[in-house]
Amino acid sequence: MTSRERPNEDGLIARFFAPLAGEGAFGLKDDVACVSPKPGHDLLLTTDALVETVHFLPEDLPASIARKALGVNVSDLAAKGADPAGFLLSLALPETWTEEWLAAFAAGLGEAARDFACPLLGGDTVKARGALTLCVTAIGEVPTGRMVRRTTAQVGDVICVTGTIGDAALGLKLRKAPAWAESLSPGERAHLADRYLHPQPRHHLARALRTHAHAAMDVSDGLAGDLAKMVRVNGVSAVVEADTVPLSPGVQKAIKVDPGLYDLAVTGGDDYEILCTVPEKKLDSFMKEADSVGVMLSAIGRIVQGHEIPVFRMRGSERRYDAGSFSHF
Amino acid sequence: MTSRERPNEDGLIARFFAPLAGEGAFGLKDDVACVSPKPGHDLLLTTDALVETVHFLPEDLPASIARKALGVNVSDLAAKGADPAGFLLSLALPETWTEEWLAAFAAGLGEAARDFACPLLGGDTVKARGALTLCVTAIGEVPTGRMVRRTTAQVGDVICVTGTIGDAALGLKLRKAPAWAESLSPGERAHLADRYLHPQPRHHLARALRTHAHAAMDVSDGLAGDLAKMVRVNGVSAVVEADTVPLSPGVQKAIKVDPGLYDLAVTGGDDYEILCTVPEKKLDSFMKEADSVGVMLSAIGRIVQGHEIPVFRMRGSERRYDAGSFSHF
Repeated sequence: MTSRERPNEDGLIARFFAPLAGEGAFGLKDDVACVSPKPGHDLLLTTDALVETVHFLPEDLPASIARKALGVNVSDLAAKGADPAGFLLSLALPETWTEEWLAAFAAGLGEAARDFACPLLGGDTVKARGALTLCVTAIGEVPTGRMVRRTTAQVGDVICVTGTIGDAALGLKLRKAPAWAESLSPGERAHLADRYLHPQPRHHLARALRTHAHAAMDVSDGLAGDLAKMVRVNGVSAVVEADTVPLSPGVQKAIKVDPGLYDLAVTGGDDYEILCTVPEKKLDSFMKEADSVGVMLSAIGRIVQGHEIPVFRMRGSERRYDAGSFSHF
Repeated sequence: MTSRERPNEDGLIARFFAPLAGEGAFGLKDDVACVSPKPGHDLLLTTDALVETVHFLPEDLPASIARKALGVNVSDLAAKGADPAGFLLSLALPETWTEEWLAAFAAGLGEAARDFACPLLGGDTVKARGALTLCVTAIGEVPTGRMVRRTTAQVGDVICVTGTIGDAALGLKLRKAPAWAESLSPGERAHLADRYLHPQPRHHLARALRTHAHAAMDVSDGLAGDLAKMVRVNGVSAVVEADTVPLSPGVQKAIKVDPGLYDLAVTGGDDYEILCTVPEKKLDSFMKEADSVGVMLSAIGRIVQGHEIPVFRMRGSERRYDAGSFSHF
């Protein structure tokens, strides 16, 4: 099929994206979406761009790319205690796009939007000059004044993190078939690979976060680096008990074979877990609520006075991850 | 200066973008902005991406690129009767970016944000794989239920357009020094060139639009094509009196030299004027209000029954611009 036979922008929107449109999107027949928060709620807005080869790989399936683009934005909202309300998508498509690719992308996007309860509200489609580039702006809702900030951690708070850390970073490494991969079962390898491809935003934790956490952010650029960012903006420091950082069975096995992979696990990107600080007296209640919504939660350290970058305490040693943080920029 | 010496993403945000942050942006220290509409208001959201060589040219000044990226989004809001409330910016920067470029870009962005009363609320900065690519999501405010839709034109409505049409399309052509350019004064040439570089969103017309217009959209892909889009989604047709389409002195002169340029003027992109339909009985009041906020407004035709693409009536002939509409996609 030549590019002349492909639908123009309006045809493309009507065919692939209008079926995904939520309330306030006017069937994507207008340029603008209308959103009103429920009474007593604020709207939260976040935007993240994804570029092929930087944030995903050319061989990734279009449905996976779509899910990731939405998931990383919903993850930002979740970390602020917000429930997803919808999203806008800008898609810069290289000349080589095909209808087949776009149909699979839209199907994956629609499925992710349903899973995250976050409907499509609008967007834009343009020609890329270079690699496929996506920009999602996600909108969330939070009771007025209850957004969980990054800058409100307090000395003495317990540091918690959801899920497991390092899966995505090792999942990406797996593609190069490293020696340590042989010690993992097929299921463990599949789990790690999937965690890179398909972030699991922890939006079910939003309500528990806003009633328990002092401060929160999502872990996208590596646990160590993101914790360092958090303590810096709070003018505090942190102590992490290295062996309490939650690791999946596959990552644990990999580290046994190659101990240096611990550093990769805590500095690698793409976890999309939630890092938060909680006053000790609320910790039990927070753990229980997390459990009740099916989100694994681990206490990994404390916010302490000081201005140093966080220390990870190991048996017999300690480590600070200086500029080791992964960054997409 | 090598790329190693340039600030990282956090440093870049703190230095160039945090000074532009508006209320609800938390000094860009968080990933997420908090926005609440005034009581009795809806929020409107729109997003437009701009790609180097598609929407602006490599030789354009960084301040101009910034102003255009924000301006085209504010133009979308204005056409819906919304007052700007803020914006998010995703910036995919090629490896070759310099601090000097970014400083000029941020300065231009800040100036445009002040001019449009539309502060920066958040964003993302990533590596581009290819050309500079920007994505702006703009947020506007409109009294509840008063968004001016595209799909609510009525047969008998007068079609109006702001400003002048075709300036930007001819301004872009000017760069290739066509023969007709010689008949224009330096001031006229500068005006056309500026209109391509610096859209003038008609946000001052927002209030008058929502009290007078049945339907509206902004003209970004050419008057003829955008009017065709509007009548199509309304299941109607339109008659335009070709010689009432407002043309600047430079465009008038150019058309005298080369009559074919009329077609370019009404099909070329980048006008960023407002196209709207108004019931006849409100036309006088609408014209007066537009005048009082300094926005030029012209009545150019009528919404009529039918399903044909709009007709432009000339002296002794008529013209329909079929697929002649300019499209960035």
